[in-house]
Order: sequence, then C-alpha cells, then structure tokens
Amino acid sequence: MTSERTTPEVLTGLSVEEKAALTSGLDFWRTKSVGDVPSVLVTDGPHGVRKQRAGSDHLGLVDSIPATCFPPAVGLGASFDTELAERVGAALGVESSIQNVAVLLGPGVNIKRSPLCGRNFEYFSEDPIVAGEIGAGWVRGVQSKGVGTSLKHFAANNQETDRLRISSDVDVRPLREIYLRAFQRVVEDAQPWTVMCSYNRINGRYASEDPWLLTTVLREEWGFEGLVMSDWGAVNDRVSAINAGLDLEMPSSGGRTDAEIVAAVGDGRLDESVLDASAARVASLAHRATEAEHTAGPLDVDAHHALAREAAGRSIVLLTNDGVLPLERTARLAIIGDFAANPRFQGAGSSLINPTRLDTALDEIRALSTGDVAYAQGFSLDADASVDVQASLRAEAVGAASAADVAVLFLGLPAQLESEGFDRTGIDLPAEQLALFDAVVAANPRTVVVLSHGGVVALPFADRAAAILDGSLLGQAGGGGTADVLFGVVNPSAKLTETIPLRLQDNPTFGNFPGEFGHVRYGEGVLVGYRWYDARELPVAFPFGHGLSYTTFSYRDAVATVTPDGDLDIRVAVTNSGGRAGREVVQVYTGLAPSIVERAPRELKAFAGVVLEPGETQEVALRVRRADLAYWDSRVEKWIVEPGVYRIDVASSSRDIRVSADVSVDGDELGLPITRNSTIGEVLAHPAAAAALKRVVQRSSGGLAESADEDTQMMMASFPVGRAGMLGITADELEEFLSEANA
Amino acid sequence: MTSERTTPEVLTGLSVEEKAALTSGLDFWRTKSVGDVPSVLVTDGPHGVRKQRAGSDHLGLVDSIPATCFPPAVGLGASFDTELAERVGAALGVESSIQNVAVLLGPGVNIKRSPLCGRNFEYFSEDPIVAGEIGAGWVRGVQSKGVGTSLKHFAANNQETDRLRISSDVDVRPLREIYLRAFQRVVEDAQPWTVMCSYNRINGRYASEDPWLLTTVLREEWGFEGLVMSDWGAVNDRVSAINAGLDLEMPSSGGRTDAEIVAAVGDGRLDESVLDASAARVASLAHRATEAEHTAGPLDVDAHHALAREAAGRSIVLLTNDGVLPLERTARLAIIGDFAANPRFQGAGSSLINPTRLDTALDEIRALSTGDVAYAQGFSLDADASVDVQASLRAEAVGAASAADVAVLFLGLPAQLESEGFDRTGIDLPAEQLALFDAVVAANPRTVVVLSHGGVVALPFADRAAAILDGSLLGQAGGGGTADVLFGVVNPSAKLTETIPLRLQDNPTFGNFPGEFGHVRYGEGVLVGYRWYDARELPVAFPFGHGLSYTTFSYRDAVATVTPDGDLDIRVAVTNSGGRAGREVVQVYTGLAPSIVERAPRELKAFAGVVLEPGETQEVALRVRRADLAYWDSRVEKWIVEPGVYRIDVASSSRDIRVSADVSVDGDELGLPITRNSTIGEVLAHPAAAAALKRVVQRSSGGLAESADEDTQMMMASFPVGRAGMLGITADELEEFLSEANA
Repeated sequence: MTSERTTPEVLTGLSVEEKAALTSGLDFWRTKSVGDVPSVLVTDGPHGVRKQRAGSDHLGLVDSIPATCFPPAVGLGASFDTELAERVGAALGVESSIQNVAVLLGPGVNIKRSPLCGRNFEYFSEDPIVAGEIGAGWVRGVQSKGVGTSLKHFAANNQETDRLRISSDVDVRPLREIYLRAFQRVVEDAQPWTVMCSYNRINGRYASEDPWLLTTVLREEWGFEGLVMSDWGAVNDRVSAINAGLDLEMPSSGGRTDAEIVAAVGDGRLDESVLDASAARVASLAHRATEAEHTAGPLDVDAHHALAREAAGRSIVLLTNDGVLPLERTARLAIIGDFAANPRFQGAGSSLINPTRLDTALDEIRALSTGDVAYAQGFSLDADASVDVQASLRAEAVGAASAADVAVLFLGLPAQLESEGFDRTGIDLPAEQLALFDAVVAANPRTVVVLSHGGVVALPFADRAAAILDGSLLGQAGGGGTADVLFGVVNPSAKLTETIPLRLQDNPTFGNFPGEFGHVRYGEGVLVGYRWYDARELPVAFPFGHGLSYTTFSYRDAVATVTPDGDLDIRVAVTNSGGRAGREVVQVYTGLAPSIVERAPRELKAFAGVVLEPGETQEVALRVRRADLAYWDSRVEKWIVEPGVYRIDVASSSRDIRVSADVSVDGDELGLPITRNSTIGEVLAHPAAAAALKRVVQRSSGGLAESADEDTQMMMASFPVGRAGMLGITADELEEFLSEANA
Repeated sequence: MTSERTTPEVLTGLSVEEKAALTSGLDFWRTKSVGDVPSVLVTDGPHGVRKQRAGSDHLGLVDSIPATCFPPAVGLGASFDTELAERVGAALGVESSIQNVAVLLGPGVNIKRSPLCGRNFEYFSEDPIVAGEIGAGWVRGVQSKGVGTSLKHFAANNQETDRLRISSDVDVRPLREIYLRAFQRVVEDAQPWTVMCSYNRINGRYASEDPWLLTTVLREEWGFEGLVMSDWGAVNDRVSAINAGLDLEMPSSGGRTDAEIVAAVGDGRLDESVLDASAARVASLAHRATEAEHTAGPLDVDAHHALAREAAGRSIVLLTNDGVLPLERTARLAIIGDFAANPRFQGAGSSLINPTRLDTALDEIRALSTGDVAYAQGFSLDADASVDVQASLRAEAVGAASAADVAVLFLGLPAQLESEGFDRTGIDLPAEQLALFDAVVAANPRTVVVLSHGGVVALPFADRAAAILDGSLLGQAGGGGTADVLFGVVNPSAKLTETIPLRLQDNPTFGNFPGEFGHVRYGEGVLVGYRWYDARELPVAFPFGHGLSYTTFSYRDAVATVTPDGDLDIRVAVTNSGGRAGREVVQVYTGLAPSIVERAPRELKAFAGVVLEPGETQEVALRVRRADLAYWDSRVEKWIVEPGVYRIDVASSSRDIRVSADVSVDGDELGLPITRNSTIGEVLAHPAAAAALKRVVQRSSGGLAESADEDTQMMMASFPVGRAGMLGITADELEEFLSEANA
C-alpha cells in the first residue's frame, strides 16, 4: 500500500530497489552510485581527516593518509573561541576537499557527563552552551569549504561502556536542557549537512529508531534540513530506523537490509514516501558534495601546521602560577617526563589521525631557549617497567631538576588508559608519576607541571607546583604551542570546559556510571558538571571556566537590559590591569531563586573573548538568548521562560564572579487549566477558581467544613479537587465548580 | 460478561450491589454492614489508638479519646529491639480491643529517603531491614490480641509534597531492594491483616491502581493473604483500583464509586469474580475481627504508661558523652529549654494521639534528683517572640547554668515545622536555640543537650556539648524515659536508624527532592542513607547505627559460615568491658567487591541486642538470610545471589566496624542465553559460544579479520553479534552461530 505521493525529482526513474540501495553504504566509507546519483566518500574526523589508505582492514584505525592533526575537541573547546574553531574547521574543510571527502564526521558535541567517559577527548565540555557554540563555529568553518559535517553522536551518548546497547535513562528536563541543547544550537545556528545518530538507546529506545528524536525534535522543532546517518553499525532494525527518520545506514550491510526495506515497502510496513524522502536526502547530499567547488591540492602543510600550533597555544589552560611563568629564555631548564619527547597529542579510536608532522615539546623548548636545556625521561610508560627502572629514571630526573633554575615536568595519562570503546575506572595519574613529582619538587621547588590527558585527572599536588599548564590533548603542534606558552610567546587564555574535582566520589555520576544490565540512570538530573558542585557547595580542585593569564583583568559596571526581541544584553567594562597584552574570556552566568524548577545556582549562558593591551579597557557586549533562559515544562511540553528577577553573574570562572546585575524578565504564558487533578491548594491560589470553590462549598450539603482547623486545612491543600468526594462534595458539584473555575 | 466462577461462601446471597457496597467505607472509619457481614471500625495509629470522638469533624485530628501515646516510630525504631516493638504492639492491641477497634492503621515502614520528609517521625529508618524487622515485631504484637494492622503506605511514599499526585520515579533495583524490602519482610514474617496503599504514583501509575504492586508482587510473590485498603482518599479510579487488587476504598464515597463498580460489572469492564474476591476479603476481615477474643476494659493506664516509659528510655540515643553522664542524683542542675516543661512527644497529622497522661522531663528529673533543680525556659517557641524576649530568656538561662553543676539543655524542632502533609525545607534548629546553646555552654561547659524532633536536625555544636541525648519523639512518658537515662536508671542502648548529616547538601536526595511537576526522581538509586555517605566517603555528623552506652563493649572472634539452608550464621563474642550493666546492639553488614551491580560498601543485614553484666562475655548469634544477599536482576526478573566472597562486618555502628570475616557464597544460576544482542565480548567470555563463533568466522567468506589489531578488537568487543553484518558475517552464518552457541 503506497500513499499518494510525488517522487522527488532527484529520484526520477529509480526503482524501489534502487532507492533502497541509496539508503545504505557501498562499503565502509562510501555511499552508492545509483542512476545519476554519484557515490561520495565520508571519513572520520573530527580534528583531522582520517582517510583510510586503500587495502587496509575494515576499520583501518591505524593506516590512514597523512593529515594535519589539530587539537582534539578537549583542547579546542578550552579556547572558548568560536572564531578559532571556525578557522580550524575551514582548514579541515580544505584538507577534506583536497582528498575528495564529501563529509567529515564531526563535531562531537556530547556532554562530558562523567570524567570517566573514554571518549571525552572527542567532546568539548560539560556545558551545552560551550559545546554548542564551539561546535557551531567548527561546522561553519568546514562547510564554508563545500564539505559537509556530521553532528554526532545524537544523542545522550555519554559513555563507552556497553555503548551499543546501553539505555541512557534520562528525564526530559536534563535531556532537553543539557544533553540535546548543544545539538540544538549547532543545528539552529549552523545547519550541518548531516547528523549522525548514536549507538545507544535513550529511555529504552535506540537512537537509530527513535522518531521523536530523529524527526519530531530534530526536524520539526529545530528545522534540520540535512540527512541523518547511522553511526557505524548503529542500525538495529532497518525498517524501524528509516520510519523513525534515519536516512542512511553506514556502513554497508552487504545488501541484507536494503532487501528488508524493499520487502517492507512491499507489505506496507514502510510507506514508499518515507523511503523517497530518505533516498532523496542521500541523493541531494551526494549531488551537493559533488557540485561543491573543490580546493585544489597539494595541501599547504606548513600553513596548517602553523594554525595547529596557534590553536594548541590557545587551548592550554594555566591552572596555577606563582610567578615562575613565563620562563626566561636564558633559564637553565630541566625538561622531565616521557611526554616531552613522545607527546600524547590525540586520543585512540576512530579519530586517530596520521599527522603530517609531529612537534615535541622538548625540541620546541630548545628552539626557543637560549639557556641550557637538559632532558630526563623521568618515568617509563611501559606497564611492565620494574620498580628499579622507575626509581633509576626518577633519580636521573631529580639530578637534572637540582641542576636547573626551573624544572618542567610533563605528566599525563598513558594512551592505553583512555580510548573510544571503553571508559576509565579512575581519575588518578599513575603512581610513578606522582612519586616523580614529589621527588622533583623536593629537589627544585620551581617545578612547572605540564599535563597531557584526554579525560580529567586528579591533581592532589596542585598547591605544591610552582605552576601547572593543562595541555589536555593538543594535536600535532602541541609541542610548539606548549613552548610558546611556557616562554610567554603566547599569553594563555584558555579556560576549563570541565570541572576538575578533588575526588571521583564527588562527581554527580558516581554510583550511576556506567550503569548495569543495559541501563544507566542519569540520576543527577540537570545538575551536571559545575551545576552539581555549585548546588551542593562542594569544593573542587579547579572550577569550570577557570584559567589564568600572565596578565590580570578587572571587571566593572555590569549592566543587563532586555532587548526588544526579549534577549538579554549584558555590557561590562574589562580592563587589562596587568603588564602584558592578553585575552580574557568573559563568562555570563544566570541564576533565578526561588524558582518553580530545580536549577543550578549558576548556568553559563554566554561567553566572549576580548584582547586587551596593558591598561586598555573595553566594553564587552554579550547576548543571552531568551530561549536559553527557558526550562522545559513537562506539563505543557514547551520551553517556558519563568518570570522573575534573574541574577546575571559576569565572571572570570564559574567560581570567580567579578560583577553582578539583576534583570527583570517577563515570563511566558503557561495557561494551565483547573482540572479535577488540580489540588485544593492550587485552586485556592487561583483567584477565579478559589471564588468558584467557595461558592460551591457554600451551596454544598456535605460541606468542606469551614470549621476545619488550620492543621486540617494544610493537610487538605494537597488533595486534588477531584477527590473532594471525601469531603462531601458531590460529582455534580464538582462539575459545576470546574466549569465555573475555567469560565 | 462474567467468567465461570464460584461465589465465595461468605458472600452467599449477596447481590452485585451489596458486594460492591462492601468494598467501600460506610463513613470515615467504618466498613459497611451488609447481609450478615458486620460493620467494623478502623482507627489511625500507629503509636496509639486514635479513635475519634463522636460528633467531631470529618478528619477529627484533635478530638479523639484518650489513649496511651507510645514512642512514635522514629523513637521505637531506634531501640533496634523487635521484642520491645512486639510488646508495644501487644499493648496497642489491648487498647484497640478495649475500644472495639478492628484494625489499627499501622505500622508505617516507608524508608526515610530524605531528612526533609514531614512524616519521617512515623517511619522507622533509612534502612529496610531495620524498618522491616521492627515493623514485623509490632504487627505480631498487635495481632496477638486479635486486632488487625495495616501495613502502610504501600509503596514508595517518601515525601508529603504533592503526595496525592507525585510519581515516585524509581528504578527497579532501589524499588525492590530498598523501598519494597521493608514491606516484603513484614508481609512474609508477620502477615498483617491488611495493607494500605499509598496516595502517590510509582513510575507514573497510582499505587491504588497498580496491579503489579498490589497483586503480582504483594500477593503472588510475597504470599499476602489479607486485604488491601486505600489510604484515605487515595482512590483515583475505582474500577481500575479494584481490578488492580485494591479491595476496600476508604473513606466512604457516598455511594458514587460503588455505583461505578456495579456499572463496570454490568458492562464487562470488571469481572464479577474480581469483585467477589475483594468483597470476600472485606467480609473475612469483618468476621475475623468480630470473632476475635476481645480484651475487657478498663485500660490499665498505669501499666501502659510504664511500658511507654520503658520504651522511651530504650529509644534514646546517646550521641556523645565526655563522662558527664549519667548525672549524679545530688548534682545541682539547671534544666533549660521550653521542651523540658512542654514536651514535644509526637508528630502532627493523622497519628496525633490524645495521651492518657503526659510526663514532663522537668518533673521526672525533679522526682529522681536529690539536689537542686532550677528551670529556665531559655527560648520562646512563639514565632512572633521579639529579639528582646529571646535575649531575656537566654540571659535567665545563662544565670541558671552558671549556678549549676550541670546544665541540661532541651532543644528541638517546634511542632509547626514538621507534620504529615508537608515537608521541611531545611534541617537546622531555630537560630535562637543555637544562640542559647552558645550562651549556655559558655557559662557552663558541662552542658548536656537533649533533642526533641521528628526529622533529623543538624548538630553544628556537637563537639562543644558535654553530652548529647537524641530523644527524637518519645511519646507520653518521654519525660520519664529521659530522666531515667540522664540519671543512669536506664543505660542507653538505642542506635541511630538514620544518618545525621553534616549538611543537607550532602544528602543523596539533594536536587531530587521533593521533585517538580508531579514527578520526583529517585536519582540516588540504591545508595539511600548511609549507603550513599559510605559509597562517596562523605563525612557525617553521626553515622547510621551509632549510639553510645554508659559502659563499653569489645568484640572478638567473628565467624561466618553458610548454613545448610544457605543462610549465613554469624557468631561473635561480645564482652562488656566497662563498669556497668548494659545492652549492646550488634550489627552485621555485608559487602561484596567487585560486584556486577552497584552496591553500597556496607549493607545492614541483621542486628541483635545483648544484655551484659560488667565483665560478662556472650557469644551472639546472628542470621543473615540468603534472600537478603540477593540483588534484583532485571535481565531475568529475579532475585539473584551473586557468587563470591562476601565481607561480613560485625559492628557497633555503620562506621565502627569491630571485627570482620569473609565467607564464600555460591551464586544462583542466571541461565542467560546467547542471543543476537549478546556482545562479541560476552560471546568470547562464554567458552561454548566463543568456540562456535570461531568456527563460524573461520568458515565465513567475509571474515571478522583475525588480523585486526588489539585496539580494533577491544572496540569491537561491545558490538552485539547481531550487528556482525558490519564485519562480513552473513545472516545465515549468524543463525548458525546462535544455534551452535546455545546447543
């Protein structure tokens, strides 16, 4: 049974079989050529182009052609710089185009719900506005070069454990307000060519077959116009998937599921118009990609490496500094730690890039230094290294540190501890590295720590280091970026996109991660990341949004007004109060207390970077969208802005509020009717309904005793009026009341 | 349409209308007399008989006949004494019987999920074993006198806010293992005559119309043989309710819902056999109550008051003591605080008892003392009292304290801050009481604090008091019980049934209480109460199970063995190592790490009281039921004991483990088959399936490349074999594999 329909022009002349064929991959990386629809190539990303070499194995995680490895999302996000993300995106677009790649598979905007998620290095933040803004910038950049993106992993894919089956059991407010919000922003602001559905289930239903997710929310609410593809192997039931809005199955199923599609059209389980829509989206994508203006090669490797270095420098967070940084060029340095010579610059899994070049921090420090630079390995990353070997490496490092003006200690997570495909079980650095720190700092208190890691690590030694640079993962030019920051060639301006907790046990997901028996409960609700630590007033090692500079900034004169279109306009004067040019990331948080919903004390709503010369002052303008003030109201199934006086905190970090302002915001109309399920308390709070109830009670024979004492009245306030039979109100009287109350 | 059925004998000759009539109340407190089925009276409890005087208003919270007010559940639970609970129950049974009460509405065994629940004073504990054991003892006691009980509020009714509509959204493991477990124990061990369903919804469905709850679990799984009644006004839809297993609607609906029942039988929405079953249960209850041997009056008020005093003394927890307690009879005392003269001895709402008598601590202290006993009010409970009034009361108290050897300071929550019907918003004592403590302790460091409260209060001054007695709510003889403990007539032995946290923000429910828009998420899962504080290694003010004595106890030689029926037998030698006879509550906690499920580090499984003379040693035997070791496995929908070496901690509190033992426990058979949803990792861990997969792969043309590197293999481990199409395994090969793997 086929409904009345018009075949899209792009599909003219194609049979059902051919249309079905279009909706799944030709092989691992290509779509099919059918009729005049060309085959196009997609490749993994996001921080580089992972185009598989011919002849390698199916997944080909290792053997790809060289490409520039930009800082992974964990690094780039810390820049809090959408313009930089856009430039990096544009460079990736160029590399894709040169390689004939139609769609670069990224960005990943999943929320870092737990520090343990093995894939956190591919995601931007624990905050949806940061993830959404950076992600949107990246998408605009890539797509400016005629190359598509794939916004992933849609949605609520916040762990690797059991990722193909796990159900993310999450209530609607955190789902809408936290987990979907980053996706919504990228779709609405940057319209990615494609969206990639995730492996997991959401509240029991596979993302790949969830019509609410893939159609109602994505297309109807957000206006997504592109194509939805599956993550590789994410299709569970192909017919359910296409009915839900999943246009393209990847990779190839060898024809098996195409046949299922054809059969389903035949027996009416799938309306041919649904197949048409999906096939047309695949065809459109293929045409669009093919017709886009291509960038001619060869790749300007030097220019992209330079951009990668700039991005790396902008991604490094200065956590602490007692004044030891920036280093003097003439200083005698002891560079310690295996990562200085063998950088950890990206994470493992599908995003693994074969870099065009690879800086080491050691070489780049030596290139900028005019003093003596000694190196000691410090520790072995070989898990089988004996205690003696580690002790001997440590002793050598102590010797180097003792002889130096400053020791620069490179610590981090070994690559094998974190990857796509599994989650971590703890946040501690390896014991031998902690022992090395103790020994080195004892030998030389002027010890600077440089960190390399995908997921957050605990920093129990934080107050004993002279300075800490958090380099997370910085891509192929991370060594250069690190050297730039160490010597002050670049003044650090990055900020933490994720809270660094004191203990794993303080984390909101503790006890609810990674779940069991195919379900993980998002029990912390909307209190994700800093929202939790702030609400519970928990101390943290370093708060969300934290990051120092080699200069200082002062804030004054915060003014918040409501614009004609309902957004908030925030103005603040920021002065570079130090002695060095620098960039400050100004953050705007809002709060509303009391509120009818659970809210974090502070929620990030906007941020902006400002570059200031010493002594310079600029007025920074930030806009908070009215839509970002809304909570999701499950009673009316709508976004609702609650009326009230919102507190606007203008801040240098989530726990370093510099100036605040109040602004009164009108609320959205709720329009809740009085029903038999309304409580007596609600009725009494509603003037018209209260009057109606009083009239009915006065007429009533049974009588809600007016003589009831205060305790009784308080106890009855929670009774729905529909249960007032208990109080002697008849069914007719109830009907009478309801009609009067809503009159 | 009526199915084939036999009318129960007890209903012979009754029409549908008459049977329907039986299944709802005659008025607020009585069932109907129909045919030869007598009308019977039920009354509120649980810690006294609240029989309404004739002619008072509908709810009649105030105007009831005098009855002995025993310690409310918050007090009685702290005794950790099932035998005492049984004796109190028996006394309540006697009073009920004298008053012709057929069913005393109690016990309440809901879990104290949040310290803010306004009705926590009516519940025993944050732990289901404590609630279940004490509740079962109480039921046995009442029912031994031919009076029924009503186990309430079934189920997951853990707050008062929006209690008639709120949905307790709780996952199956916490629901089964924490919230239902106390009910299960009471049903299985003591078979209460009735169960009372709660007002709230559970996962979206009203408890009053949940067939899974009221029939599958309660009757089919637990073997409940009695009647299910509604909480007063809890019926939402009467036909759904009776179909679900709700036998008796209370109170009367004035005939409206009986007519709905009749109509539903008429049009087939309700099978007459379902009505028969419910009507027969009502009839049986009425006959059983009427035919029970009744206790003749009058009530021996003195004897019951004496029992109330004994119970009160056993319910007082000695939190701290620097040696000031017990008091010398000759000591000059300053008794300070309004509660000493005007005791808070019970909570507000449906359980409010009109006591036969009311001790004050002041009078009872004076009765036992041979020294000077001064009294100062200390603070006014009048919320309108001025700062000056409070200051003047404080000054007077300081004067009294200065002149005394010991100040005994009665602090507590004003009655209006907690009640059935609403929840608290904080756990702090009123500011004027904290100020009074500061002033009194400055005047006399030998200050003993006595606390009165239903819900837990924060104790920021704990380390500055010479001693703290936690009297919670103690019933009408609480004054005497308090005096007994102060002077050492009774050596305290009660233990905390609920953790006293340092801050409300540390509580597991913070941010998830009391919910919004009709839903409250039990986001903390199984980590309720001490389970949460222990798992997160959070400091607390006083841990669950804590309580000191005027003597000391030492533990040694813990031995744990498995009995032939699979239970654990725990033996431990306990010695009274102090100078005074006393009672120790020995607690047994179990732990299993690692485990395939989220578990608290320690879970209480058994407790036992032992009374020892100074120097005396006894071997205490405790039994941990095998069933209590089980977790609920949602994959097979069964209780499963996980195999492993369980740690048995024998303890004086949840954080005072005295001796431990390990015991190896055989697991239950899970019998999970290999399906297309099994992951490659699971298959490889299953010898037969792994071999089958290997054979299929070897035969396969596509080929799960054996050459795949280690990273690739690790990433593939989470793929269900049903998705192996991605790896080149055909549908036929998959079928072949599944049949070989399960062969």
